[in-house]
Amino acid sequence: MSEDKNALGYAKLAPKTPVPSDIEVSQQIVKEVGLLPVADVAKQVGLKDDEVIPWGIAKAKIPLKARDSRKDLPDGNYVVVTGINPTPLGEGKSTTTIGLAQALGAVLGKPTIACIRQPSQGPTFGIKGGAAGGGYAQVVPMEEFNLHLTGDIHAVTAANNLLAAAIDTRMFHECSQSDEALYKRLCPEGKGFSPVMKRRLKKLGIDATKKPADLTAEERSAFARLDIDPDTITWQRVLDTCDRHLREVQVGIGAKETVKAKGGDGRIQHCRKSGFDITVASEVMAVLALARDLADLREKLGAMVIGYSRAGKPITADDLGCGGALAVLMKDAIMPTLMQTVERTPVLVHAGPFANIATGNSSVVADEIALKLVGQDGFCVTEAGFGADIGMEKFFNIKCRYSGLKPKCAVIVATVRALKMHGGGPPVSAGKPLSKEYTEENVELVTKGAANLVKHIENAKKFGVNVVVAVNQFKNDTPAEIEAVKKASMDAGAYDAVLSNHWAKGGEGAADLAAAVVKACNDNDAANFKFLYDVNKTIKEKIEIISKEIYGADGVEFADLANKQIEQYEKSGFGNLPICIAKTQYSFSCDASAKGVPTGFNITVREIRSCAGAGFLYPICGEIMTVPGLPTRPGFYDVDVDLETGDVIGLF
Amino acid sequence: MSEDKNALGYAKLAPKTPVPSDIEVSQQIVKEVGLLPVADVAKQVGLKDDEVIPWGIAKAKIPLKARDSRKDLPDGNYVVVTGINPTPLGEGKSTTTIGLAQALGAVLGKPTIACIRQPSQGPTFGIKGGAAGGGYAQVVPMEEFNLHLTGDIHAVTAANNLLAAAIDTRMFHECSQSDEALYKRLCPEGKGFSPVMKRRLKKLGIDATKKPADLTAEERSAFARLDIDPDTITWQRVLDTCDRHLREVQVGIGAKETVKAKGGDGRIQHCRKSGFDITVASEVMAVLALARDLADLREKLGAMVIGYSRAGKPITADDLGCGGALAVLMKDAIMPTLMQTVERTPVLVHAGPFANIATGNSSVVADEIALKLVGQDGFCVTEAGFGADIGMEKFFNIKCRYSGLKPKCAVIVATVRALKMHGGGPPVSAGKPLSKEYTEENVELVTKGAANLVKHIENAKKFGVNVVVAVNQFKNDTPAEIEAVKKASMDAGAYDAVLSNHWAKGGEGAADLAAAVVKACNDNDAANFKFLYDVNKTIKEKIEIISKEIYGADGVEFADLANKQIEQYEKSGFGNLPICIAKTQYSFSCDASAKGVPTGFNITVREIRSCAGAGFLYPICGEIMTVPGLPTRPGFYDVDVDLETGDVIGLF
Repeated sequence: MSEDKNALGYAKLAPKTPVPSDIEVSQQIVKEVGLLPVADVAKQVGLKDDEVIPWGIAKAKIPLKARDSRKDLPDGNYVVVTGINPTPLGEGKSTTTIGLAQALGAVLGKPTIACIRQPSQGPTFGIKGGAAGGGYAQVVPMEEFNLHLTGDIHAVTAANNLLAAAIDTRMFHECSQSDEALYKRLCPEGKGFSPVMKRRLKKLGIDATKKPADLTAEERSAFARLDIDPDTITWQRVLDTCDRHLREVQVGIGAKETVKAKGGDGRIQHCRKSGFDITVASEVMAVLALARDLADLREKLGAMVIGYSRAGKPITADDLGCGGALAVLMKDAIMPTLMQTVERTPVLVHAGPFANIATGNSSVVADEIALKLVGQDGFCVTEAGFGADIGMEKFFNIKCRYSGLKPKCAVIVATVRALKMHGGGPPVSAGKPLSKEYTEENVELVTKGAANLVKHIENAKKFGVNVVVAVNQFKNDTPAEIEAVKKASMDAGAYDAVLSNHWAKGGEGAADLAAAVVKACNDNDAANFKFLYDVNKTIKEKIEIISKEIYGADGVEFADLANKQIEQYEKSGFGNLPICIAKTQYSFSCDASAKGVPTGFNITVREIRSCAGAGFLYPICGEIMTVPGLPTRPGFYDVDVDLETGDVIGLF
Repeated sequence: MSEDKNALGYAKLAPKTPVPSDIEVSQQIVKEVGLLPVADVAKQVGLKDDEVIPWGIAKAKIPLKARDSRKDLPDGNYVVVTGINPTPLGEGKSTTTIGLAQALGAVLGKPTIACIRQPSQGPTFGIKGGAAGGGYAQVVPMEEFNLHLTGDIHAVTAANNLLAAAIDTRMFHECSQSDEALYKRLCPEGKGFSPVMKRRLKKLGIDATKKPADLTAEERSAFARLDIDPDTITWQRVLDTCDRHLREVQVGIGAKETVKAKGGDGRIQHCRKSGFDITVASEVMAVLALARDLADLREKLGAMVIGYSRAGKPITADDLGCGGALAVLMKDAIMPTLMQTVERTPVLVHAGPFANIATGNSSVVADEIALKLVGQDGFCVTEAGFGADIGMEKFFNIKCRYSGLKPKCAVIVATVRALKMHGGGPPVSAGKPLSKEYTEENVELVTKGAANLVKHIENAKKFGVNVVVAVNQFKNDTPAEIEAVKKASMDAGAYDAVLSNHWAKGGEGAADLAAAVVKACNDNDAANFKFLYDVNKTIKEKIEIISKEIYGADGVEFADLANKQIEQYEKSGFGNLPICIAKTQYSFSCDASAKGVPTGFNITVREIRSCAGAGFLYPICGEIMTVPGLPTRPGFYDVDVDLETGDVIGLF
């Protein structure tokens, strides 16, 4: 192979210095180098023509048969990329995920697929900007990645909000109709029970082979009246928009949303206080990330609990007659989207559940497809959101539990900057210049802060994986500082610790990291992988294990509400679900300002919410914001269309 | 060509009797006959490979260069399909549009493209069901057509709601910040004015070549403070969901949405009463339907007026810094989607603005592309929503005015059923069995009701087109009844009147209709086409012309609010926009129950709203509902996934 080609036979990347903005890099690659037709990206990993559905500009969806038809083939090596507790600027987990995959594929020539989350579109127009990686380690075209993609998040919005409409509408109709009237409308003459109705009959213990006319009056009432207690409704509406004024709203205040007062002549406004979340916070997104196939997706969506009846029984999407329609709305969304990196290596983008209230990991099915496609000697590099105390723990204990997949290696991304912060450096915040502690050499701060990294390494090792530390290089980092990180890592039992400069140099910059990851995988047996806890322990025991073992807490305090909910969940049969703790990513503890390795603290569980359909409980430990706001000058001020070329400008 | 092939060389349609449900017909075609690969559908009309972007299952987007590269070629024949005032069951306009296109293409062998609207997804799960046509005259696969399509409506939702968030957020920030603080945040040091900011500078008469630091204090205040009067805000949020409880909502009631009280210590809740519409009611959708290209889309989106400042100046999306971002969100949506009929003829699906508050017509660009692709001897069959008094009038006076395209022929769809209703038959309503007047022969009712059709024929002829009446056949229609419709049509000056049975027989069933349309086009010169009014007349004059000439009203009454708004629009420079009257489709008048040809009535204009970006004013004449509700047993109860086959079931 000639010098100017990479291991895949394509022209080698020619990075510019200084590195242009992300959108400039992306558009330069598209225009000067050219994208690989998505069908050819697919061919790289052995996909057949009928396993690729082209879906818009430089994107394709991969049907699940790509996995199922290879079910007897061995899986590739499963690598998760995670990070230390970050600064608000981020430490480059996505960029490292992409850079590592470029190095494995385009430099080392190993069959490799990167699996990443679809970013929420809302924040793209706020302060966050794009999420395709960055510099010379990104997915291209970045505007296609960041905007709409193949519509999966829009499908989640549609599904979530159909269920929301069904809830309020059903309560509205139940208000004004007798049980018999409700039943007659639900089961009009000549129409039998539909499949979703049979699910409810089964749940109620009513013979589902009966015809609607054959139910007793008691059975009709039980079937027709859900009797939802409005105070228990946890289902919110969603939008993929940073619209803070929707966080809490009063719905149903229109003149037509009134019902006849019982036993009176007047009409009562059928309104209630509710709220919106950003779409990626929807349980539908969590379901998408954890579903194994269309049938499992259907079951999980139908099993989502929206609240409880006045008698304390969980009310599901299927009880509302919605589960099938939700699955139909999500039937395309269950297929991951294939794109490519700046070095033409394949990327599967799929699902993007919130990293606090949900798992923060991309989908099970994307990883499964990737592992089959890359084959025994290949690599699936997947990313876990937030710091390793949250994202990685959930990756292992929830995602891997549901998938049955066994990772061999965890890459923990660290930066000198973040370690200095953990060592006692002044606060770091977006939009403000960095203090001199961060721009000048300060080995002492690094060494002190490395304790945070050390704890994450120790945590990862509890799951039986080899740990490779990736020091994500920034321009002010000095050799002595980097050496300090490496030494601390190796002392803590990391398999290796490697400097990586993929942002500026692409795959070449991550070649050493890739070599270390290959070695770490070859040197581990997937059978070593183990969970931290047995799901059959009590809810409290599971929360305590995570809090003590991963966060280093002394113990856990449960508020009254949480205790009440635990009781309700155990009664409802949700007691053996895994735990998905919602807390800050900025610290091991629940206090975002507690840097390094805090000790002597308790975890306080204010309440515990359920994602009974997706399959986890999420204790709320701290304030969780599910609709970001917009600043006075949001990112959208810079976004425009170049009317000459049609190019998108100003995305970042 | 052998007997068992159609004019395009494909296997002839083999319709079943009785006609199965729409989804069964669609799935039977897909499974037994097979779809044509979308690339081959494109080749039928001469599209080159790089003019087709495959976009999901059996769909492709067609970039506008397919039109632009053919700009010197002659247009095909332009045919609009419209209808009489319908019953609530619908008279089959979409089905006739598709059936006629099948007949022209697959039976007569004429290059033909049908152009139809993308249906709103929300009502698909309510009582309406699908909108792909029906029976053997439909677009396939119908579930692909009805669900998500290629994401255009989702893009409209995203764009509309980004602007909504920008409005409330800006008011929130303006509440708590001085002009100087606002200005500093909008123009942070080191950052120049962005393109969208320069638009606002230009509007304010400030030299846009100045740097942010060079503006005077007065200019800074004018630039930074929009001072939106909350009572004037007409911009609503949207969702493509039938969620009646969102019709009116109180937003901003969360604990974080408070601002410091001026001159006090307390905090004030930053909330207001607002509401949601269904997405297709968004002005963004109206813009999509009327935009000529990406540049025009950008201008129109930026020019959308969301309300007025306290000083009475219109506030636009560009004033809020959003116009560019909205265009970026809509950059793919401006490309029409190519699909196929059951007879493999091409269909362009694009845009779906509400037919009352907007134009109710598919996009200008889809028709333009179609007319170039079919060429001089070919046909573009496009559909106008609602009855001809609304949809056709708006098609001619608004859509054709903006496109400059000249239709030659209007097909007016009539049914014996609807004419009987207009002739005095009892009310027809969905879900209730038809009275015997509709199931037994009654020529007298038909003859009497034909007056409604006659008035529509006369109206259409005012625009200089030839009129072909399509009698859409239903099983109870008798030869004498059909003859009565034909006679009334010919007496009224129709070019022809033809029975059509495309629903049961596909293109073969509409062959006579197609032949009549070919003849009607050959026999007319596009140059004969003319508008009903000059846009430079006053707003009142234009409304009066439409009301008298099309509806047959004696005159128009304007409420105080409408008078005030007329003054404001004329002051704001919107006086010369065309008029898009929002009224019932069930009658020529504003009273839905006034059947036939009502006389001796006035049109009452309660208020007049503006779509200054899309380019029309819409007088409100009657109650307009912009979020449908859901019944007790919505359509979603039947929708599910067949877990064996993965098929969608229960859509209708």
